[in-house]
Parts: sequence; C-alpha cells; structure tokens
Amino acid sequence: MARIAIFVACFLLSASPAWAQAKSSIEKLNAEWMAAFNKGDAKALAAMYTPDAYVLPAGAEMAKGHNAIEKFWGGAVKQLGDAKLTTVDVQSLGPGAAREIGTFSFKTKAQPPEQITGKYVVVWRKMGGQWQLATDIWNMNK
Amino acid sequence: MARIAIFVACFLLSASPAWAQAKSSIEKLNAEWMAAFNKGDAKALAAMYTPDAYVLPAGAEMAKGHNAIEKFWGGAVKQLGDAKLTTVDVQSLGPGAAREIGTFSFKTKAQPPEQITGKYVVVWRKMGGQWQLATDIWNMNK
Repeated sequence: MARIAIFVACFLLSASPAWAQAKSSIEKLNAEWMAAFNKGDAKALAAMYTPDAYVLPAGAEMAKGHNAIEKFWGGAVKQLGDAKLTTVDVQSLGPGAAREIGTFSFKTKAQPPEQITGKYVVVWRKMGGQWQLATDIWNMNK
Repeated sequence: MARIAIFVACFLLSASPAWAQAKSSIEKLNAEWMAAFNKGDAKALAAMYTPDAYVLPAGAEMAKGHNAIEKFWGGAVKQLGDAKLTTVDVQSLGPGAAREIGTFSFKTKAQPPEQITGKYVVVWRKMGGQWQLATDIWNMNK
C-alpha cells in the first residue's frame, strides 16, 4: 500500500505541474488567437500553427501549411468577428502533445449580425518550447 | 557528421517500424469500423473507443463515453449505410498516441439514396496494447 501511495504521489508530483502548465499555456494562446482574430490579423493567426498544420473548416476544403491557413483565416476574418473560444477539456498525449476540446462562437459582420456557435478539436504540439496548433477542426451542433 | 548519421540511422531504425505498425493498425481498425457500421452494430462501434472518448458529430451535440457513443451511432446506422473511410495522413504524437486525418462517405437509406461526404480527425490512443479512438470529429466541405 505504502509503495502504491508513494508511486501515486511521485506520479502526481511529476505529472501535474507540466500538465497544468500545458493547459494554462493553451488557454493563454487561445486568448492570443481570439485577439488576433478580432483584429483581423490572419498572418498572426497562421503563425500560431505548426508549419505543417492542418485546418479542417466546416463548409470548406482542408488547408495545410502557413500560406493556406493564412489565406483561409484571411477570408474568415472579413465575414466574422467577436470570436470566443472556451476550453472544455485538455488531454495530455505525451510530453509534447495535447488534445483540446472546446466550444466557439462568432458573430457575422452582416446586418443584422448572426451568432454562429459550435465545437472544435485542436491537437497542440510543443515545437521548440512553444505550443502550436497542429490540427484544427470544428463543426456546428445544428 | 558520422555521429549525426548514426543518430539519424538509430532514430529511423527505432521509430519507423513502430510508426508503420501504428498506421497499419489504424487502417485495419478503420476496416473493422466500416464493417461494424455497415452491419448496423453500434455496440461494436462503441467498443472501439476508449471508455472516456469524445465523439463530436457534425449537426449534433458531443457524446462522451461508451453509452452515449453507442446511442449516437445507433441512431446514425438507421439512417446511413455504405460507410467508407479513407486515411489521408497519420501523425505519431508519441508512443501511445496518433492523430489521423481522413475523408469519409456514407449513403443515406432514404430513397433515392444521397451521398454524404466530408473529412474527419481522430485522435487514437493505445490502451493495453490496443489502439482505440479517443476523439472523433468530422465536418462537411459544403
């Protein structure tokens, strides 16, 4: 029993700080992502992705790599604003990878503005000490 | 230079077989997934997911865990058949995790049957030596 308790304690001590750090890094990066989106800065958005990242948009073909991703978000920021991302769950997949599930809302720039809501999955990878979006996909509930 | 070459060779020797194995395991499991779907066996489909897996369907709320996932696929198999999954890219995220991107097609069971196509992301995890779907999300291109 004592051995198990020590093992569990060591596991928690070793795993938790890195884990909490990954989650808080991701939430901080999501705040940066929203700020870039709401400024219409597609270049800054694209730079948050790994060089070989995939974006799989609801209603459009997948985009791979910084240029294609910048082009995709460049189109989206013209039509949408008021981006809100809410993290629902982050699962560690090892020291350099995590899977995030979240919900989103945007407002269309058309008049009257319409709210678009849905859910997303992001696979994050730590590249050179920095968490980056490696795979980004979403859909709507209706 | 020699050191780098040895390092690269060791890396390739150590990483490639496990890596090819993960990809071929995933493709084999996708064949099982399609067979279960086409038989309408939602219980077998659900059993292919980790106990805490998330399914994030296009057009419906997310489902978590075997019971909710079985219920979701139980509804889907009544309306859809002729499932086809095609793996586009598999990325290793560590020894026990991989991210798959693919495309899918289904045919509606309504008359005349309509084809539904789209793309998906699955995060696979190796649990007790067996690869299982841990996160499953998809959307349509149009």
